[in-house]
Amino acid sequence: MHMHDASSHPTRDLAAFAAGLRFEAIPAEVAERAVNLYVDWLGSALAGKGARPVEIIARFARAAGGREGPAEVVIDRGRASSYFAAMMNGAASHFVEQDDVHNGSVLHPATVVFPVVLALAQELGASGADLITAAVAGYEVGIRVGEYMGRSHYKVFHTTGTVGTLAAAAAAGRMLGLDAERMVHAFGSAGTQASGLWEFLRDAADSKQLHTAMAAANGLMAARLAADGFRGAARILEGAQGMAAGMSSDADPARLLDRLGQRWATMETSFKYHAACRHTHPAADALLAVIAEHGLRPADIGRVTARVHQGALDVLGNVVIPRTVHQAKFNMGTVLGIVAHRGYAGVTEFEEDYDATEIAAFRDRVRMELDAEVDRAYPARWIGKVTVETADGRELHGRVDEPKGDPGNTLSREEISAKFIRLAMFPGAAGAAAGSPAVGVDEARAILERAWRIAEQPVVGSVFAAMQTA
Amino acid sequence: MHMHDASSHPTRDLAAFAAGLRFEAIPAEVAERAVNLYVDWLGSALAGKGARPVEIIARFARAAGGREGPAEVVIDRGRASSYFAAMMNGAASHFVEQDDVHNGSVLHPATVVFPVVLALAQELGASGADLITAAVAGYEVGIRVGEYMGRSHYKVFHTTGTVGTLAAAAAAGRMLGLDAERMVHAFGSAGTQASGLWEFLRDAADSKQLHTAMAAANGLMAARLAADGFRGAARILEGAQGMAAGMSSDADPARLLDRLGQRWATMETSFKYHAACRHTHPAADALLAVIAEHGLRPADIGRVTARVHQGALDVLGNVVIPRTVHQAKFNMGTVLGIVAHRGYAGVTEFEEDYDATEIAAFRDRVRMELDAEVDRAYPARWIGKVTVETADGRELHGRVDEPKGDPGNTLSREEISAKFIRLAMFPGAAGAAAGSPAVGVDEARAILERAWRIAEQPVVGSVFAAMQTA
Repeated sequence: MHMHDASSHPTRDLAAFAAGLRFEAIPAEVAERAVNLYVDWLGSALAGKGARPVEIIARFARAAGGREGPAEVVIDRGRASSYFAAMMNGAASHFVEQDDVHNGSVLHPATVVFPVVLALAQELGASGADLITAAVAGYEVGIRVGEYMGRSHYKVFHTTGTVGTLAAAAAAGRMLGLDAERMVHAFGSAGTQASGLWEFLRDAADSKQLHTAMAAANGLMAARLAADGFRGAARILEGAQGMAAGMSSDADPARLLDRLGQRWATMETSFKYHAACRHTHPAADALLAVIAEHGLRPADIGRVTARVHQGALDVLGNVVIPRTVHQAKFNMGTVLGIVAHRGYAGVTEFEEDYDATEIAAFRDRVRMELDAEVDRAYPARWIGKVTVETADGRELHGRVDEPKGDPGNTLSREEISAKFIRLAMFPGAAGAAAGSPAVGVDEARAILERAWRIAEQPVVGSVFAAMQTA
Repeated sequence: MHMHDASSHPTRDLAAFAAGLRFEAIPAEVAERAVNLYVDWLGSALAGKGARPVEIIARFARAAGGREGPAEVVIDRGRASSYFAAMMNGAASHFVEQDDVHNGSVLHPATVVFPVVLALAQELGASGADLITAAVAGYEVGIRVGEYMGRSHYKVFHTTGTVGTLAAAAAAGRMLGLDAERMVHAFGSAGTQASGLWEFLRDAADSKQLHTAMAAANGLMAARLAADGFRGAARILEGAQGMAAGMSSDADPARLLDRLGQRWATMETSFKYHAACRHTHPAADALLAVIAEHGLRPADIGRVTARVHQGALDVLGNVVIPRTVHQAKFNMGTVLGIVAHRGYAGVTEFEEDYDATEIAAFRDRVRMELDAEVDRAYPARWIGKVTVETADGRELHGRVDEPKGDPGNTLSREEISAKFIRLAMFPGAAGAAAGSPAVGVDEARAILERAWRIAEQPVVGSVFAAMQTA
């Protein structure tokens, strides 16, 4: 049997950190960034309204018992228990592919952390400072667990589904005030529910929304069970029959506690500028750089080679001709085509153009190639490199070292606000037929203004400013 | 990238079988056995009343929205949505370790299948024949998927948690009348939620109840989502980023469709005679055989060597001194000690004696040893072999080729009835302080009588006969 050094217990150390985190111990710039991430998340959650998979999950949740309670369901302003609100908001906030991502862990923290802390804050009457503290606990834990699980995990598993359950549990556990021992149990119950396979990408299936919905809900459940005395495995991360043993071949225990309390992984989280899979962003920005430098029009561009890391090939390699908007967001050719024609690949650009004739023609001239330098740098750095063959026979090279939204090239509050309004006003992925946006423009601005002040609110209350002015 | 033979699509073939199964196509002996399995399951579900992890899950479910609905919660006779009833009954029915097991797949089908079909039958007003048909679909699918995932999977993953989600989805999908295409989607959404790690065994943690609760609930959710148009991966079992790719190194695709419709895996399911982990039963029965053959008293027995398969060492190897009744059921020494002293290791025997002085002393004289013959035969056959060194210096050998309850040594309806009454009357794993049994003896007999007639009921209705006499 696998033996453990009893003095080494990283799951416990990580749990103790999450349980003991205090708002005062979080550097001001980290708390400020967490507010940015919250606002950015809220826009994505509102934009999920009307999306078919999101609405199906919401109908299921409503029928299963999620019809009333203290927590808000962002897409329809209804209320539910914190469990079902976390499930529905978790489903909603990942749909338009605009929520944040941490490069090194390839985890999307916001969509599993904020649904949980918002729902529990509303249930418990907690303050904004509590919400931000719990969110940072979720980010710091989730990112480190994601890094620990390694590249082998991400080849088959959707880390935001699997590891996201731990991030959600850490955030929920902090909201509930679990002590270190109960936090260990919460991690155990979360990790043993960790799930999410990439297989769905091959079929344009809806599993991504299910993964984020259930990571949030299961993480919240794990913490709630622990608060009531339910016991989980003590070493769910590093044990001989734990997460890494079952789902990773390159787990690196050193990552779990990497500079805990000094290195704030929350700060390393990237905002998504384009509304596509993050693996397409470096190449998209590199293409934009070539276009800007050489003043290219779409017609000037012949063939494009996106030079990428292996993870991009693994995730993006499956779709040749996208059949849905969602699938198009995972198609390098479509993303580069939209970027070349529109200068930006946002939710509206995808809705309007993902299957347009000129985009499809552009798409067919794009290919991906593994690049040794890009692959070595990944996942710590997401370098973008493209080679463009022009219609008149030139070969041009584009490169970005940090795509827009990355920590060294982050979005300003003005840019986040503009993105929020775009998303809040997005009429829904199902198109105009699905009805109106989640909010009108005046209310979107009011919600935004209120969201920016989240950390100062003594009671979090409603996200819809018009409904409550606490 | 991994390529597929487009003409081979076992996930679809298995889904089509589950979707198309009709009661009339099920051989009479299989339907009859399914009724036996249902009655056997119901006893285990009732016996879960009062167990701490079960009650914590039930409190969580009640608070999260499971307070009313059409489906019965067996442990407290309350009602809830089918989702939460499946969750609570799934948690309850695996606790006393008396629910059934299929040897070849090491899957416990009843605890993930019957909570789902009972809840949906009650919600839909379905007939007993529908319930039995859906249950058989769940058994046939779940067992084959478990066999497919192989021994490597079971080394780290609790198959009843992972594969159980597929079994539950197949059963739920059949109850909901999904066509083959939607059943594929249900499998996709179930498989991508498949989870459950053995790590908890090291700590006497409560995860086992969480695994069965969530396998049942998630499988039901997957089918419900599919019924509403939610799409899952088409090849969740065999795809390049599917279940086997992520969680098995010895998956055998031939097992998935093995004689589908001719070989009824439901018939191969074993009833559990002793209330302990199934991996202890072969040795327990072999020890009983030695004791009977040689007329041994406990004091006559010196050292005992249980000759086991590797899977038993993997699962049972972690606990040296059990600290709880539940942990004692995974401790070979304790099980053999109770068998030697009491002649049977049932729920009551464990409650009374798991930490008795003479049992602890016996336990310390038991060791396990890997046996090549036993290991080769496993998991198709669970051979029991023990070597007993007697106090007077003899070395005796005991052997059973099929432990009691196995298909070739199955329980009669009389034995199942006796076991049911024992379980229904069990005062709860938390001891007498936790309150009364789920039912009194007269009501237990009435419930039993009604349960035996399940297949003839035009509407399944309540399991509590006194509440409804349809």
